Amino acid sequence: MKSPKFSEISPVSKLLMGPGPSNVAPSVLKALAKPLLGHLDPSFLSIVDEVQVMLRYLFGTENQTTYPVSGTGSAGMETAFVNLIEPGETVLVCENGVFGRRMIDLAGRCGAQVNTIAKPWGQVFSPREVEEAISKYKPKIVSIVHAETSTGVLQPLEEICALINASGVFSIVDTVTSLGGSQLYVDEWAIDVAYSGTQKCLSCPPGLAPITFSDRALNKIKNRKTAVQSWYFDVNLIQNYFGAKRSYHHTAPVSMIYGLHEALRLICEEGVEACVARHKKNHLILKKSLESLGLRYLPKAEVILPQLNAVAIPDGVDDKTVRKRLLTEFGIEIGGGLGEFAGKAWRIGLMGVNSNECSVSTLVAALKKTL
Amino acid sequence: MKSPKFSEISPVSKLLMGPGPSNVAPSVLKALAKPLLGHLDPSFLSIVDEVQVMLRYLFGTENQTTYPVSGTGSAGMETAFVNLIEPGETVLVCENGVFGRRMIDLAGRCGAQVNTIAKPWGQVFSPREVEEAISKYKPKIVSIVHAETSTGVLQPLEEICALINASGVFSIVDTVTSLGGSQLYVDEWAIDVAYSGTQKCLSCPPGLAPITFSDRALNKIKNRKTAVQSWYFDVNLIQNYFGAKRSYHHTAPVSMIYGLHEALRLICEEGVEACVARHKKNHLILKKSLESLGLRYLPKAEVILPQLNAVAIPDGVDDKTVRKRLLTEFGIEIGGGLGEFAGKAWRIGLMGVNSNECSVSTLVAALKKTL
Repeated sequence: MKSPKFSEISPVSKLLMGPGPSNVAPSVLKALAKPLLGHLDPSFLSIVDEVQVMLRYLFGTENQTTYPVSGTGSAGMETAFVNLIEPGETVLVCENGVFGRRMIDLAGRCGAQVNTIAKPWGQVFSPREVEEAISKYKPKIVSIVHAETSTGVLQPLEEICALINASGVFSIVDTVTSLGGSQLYVDEWAIDVAYSGTQKCLSCPPGLAPITFSDRALNKIKNRKTAVQSWYFDVNLIQNYFGAKRSYHHTAPVSMIYGLHEALRLICEEGVEACVARHKKNHLILKKSLESLGLRYLPKAEVILPQLNAVAIPDGVDDKTVRKRLLTEFGIEIGGGLGEFAGKAWRIGLMGVNSNECSVSTLVAALKKTL
Repeated sequence: MKSPKFSEISPVSKLLMGPGPSNVAPSVLKALAKPLLGHLDPSFLSIVDEVQVMLRYLFGTENQTTYPVSGTGSAGMETAFVNLIEPGETVLVCENGVFGRRMIDLAGRCGAQVNTIAKPWGQVFSPREVEEAISKYKPKIVSIVHAETSTGVLQPLEEICALINASGVFSIVDTVTSLGGSQLYVDEWAIDVAYSGTQKCLSCPPGLAPITFSDRALNKIKNRKTAVQSWYFDVNLIQNYFGAKRSYHHTAPVSMIYGLHEALRLICEEGVEACVARHKKNHLILKKSLESLGLRYLPKAEVILPQLNAVAIPDGVDDKTVRKRLLTEFGIEIGGGLGEFAGKAWRIGLMGVNSNECSVSTLVAALKKTL
């Protein structure tokens, strides 16, 4: 076979204001390019230790078992589900967007009896609705999305997770788009398993999925009657690497962990509360500008997710033409709609380092010229 | 919670001559640090296209469904198994090391009826042994490791895969340590699924698992009666991203794919046959030097894996003391033994860019001083 010949890649820097990946700080890119260490080298294990300390801080937890899964955010969802669910158990999925739907699919693949409560896209669940569904279906596990990237809503969780816990039920929470961008207190809210992704508010390239397990969840997993259906995501095995033993499970993605270390370090320097406040502040500036351009948010004001702005595409405007012009003429990426919102919504991310006034003005100016 | 404060990481460059990760070329590190693009950006999709073309060349295949799984080499194994195996099917695993054992574990988690043939560590299977086991167990699938990283043996595959195919059985081949370092012809040898990792002979950081599926395998998967137990690894879904549609499944690990593009590009420049020959040549130089130091290879001469040299630790020599001195005094990492070979073997990798005369001399000089 003849060997194919290609040139070195030369990606042009763009402003990534879609649903992720977001741009990353220059020092994160620099970290990715640092010399490789072995995944069992003591100097690398110290870096892993620090990553775990910083992830605990961001999640608001003292859970020992807090680590980056070697896969993207979706791998975090799969890790949570395959470990916590045993075949035949009843799982209640709260579905109000693409990621709730994915949970239904995944819970089925884990052999769960899946019950669902649904809300129209753009709306959130009330504690009472979840409480009633728990009474009705008597699930072992409830799963819910904190920040629905497909609809741009922020689900209030404090009360809901407290009542799940009080019912003796386990909670799985998708925090892919909320970690670092919205208030999240895993221990205080009594969340059992929360997972995230690196490519949203953490401003690290996609490829890792931070996750945290409560002791209660680990205890359930330790007492499983059946093996976890995944070897790669089995927390019983992975704990031997991320726990005290530090023994081989799979080869850790060294360079990505370097990048995550730096991305987390920057958030720790800022402080997570300040980082969340910044996401809120820049969202409000963007919202005012978008509304002055006549654009309307799809979710109600009180549940809007600051870091992911879902706005209706105005009548008579062609979705793809606008997004293509923004990308090619202005070097700005915004997201189209997913699922029910395909062709109806734009999703504008203000995540991580992109949550700043300069990104907002640049996008608004470009949108004004394009519309 | 008080925010933890850490310094930027500053890993010192080391010579990684263990079982992986191996060192990577400077241009691969540089590629990792290039500006992020969106995972659906046409310029990024062109990069993905080129990666797929180069992977096909390396695997020696025209299989359309050839792509990097978003996880490490072990995720490649899991992708092969969860897709190809349906619960209740008989799988024959050829076990002669750690990775064969992992296959037994994983096939069990997929609900397979697992039969095993085993060989003492350091030995390989003959075509006749596999043929007899197929007659005896009548499996639907046979899995075998091409290059056993735990024992340093290279399993001859051409005849074995041909007879598996001729029996109407499907083959899964672990090529984690062989891709780019040993001859491998997926189409010519009629392999159904082969998976690999990026951190061995490809000299790209760990984090991706190249995989290829034959049309025959895809056809089996398309006609499954049960859903694939993994959502993340389900090739039916992932094909929508890596195939013509290019639609969203999970967010591709953009920076890692940049790195893989560059690593593959360098191999394509050299030509895969030349690259394989280079691995062989430098192995022979190393072997001569190690033997002159009185070190003995664990596998028999005719099955030694050039890129991973498993040698017996001499009597009276302490494994950990030597490896620690090599690492701290010389900045050289070599691997210890795994499983049955723990404490008994060193595993010396000459993989990817590290397969050169300079690495060999540096290691041999350091070993001489240390022993």
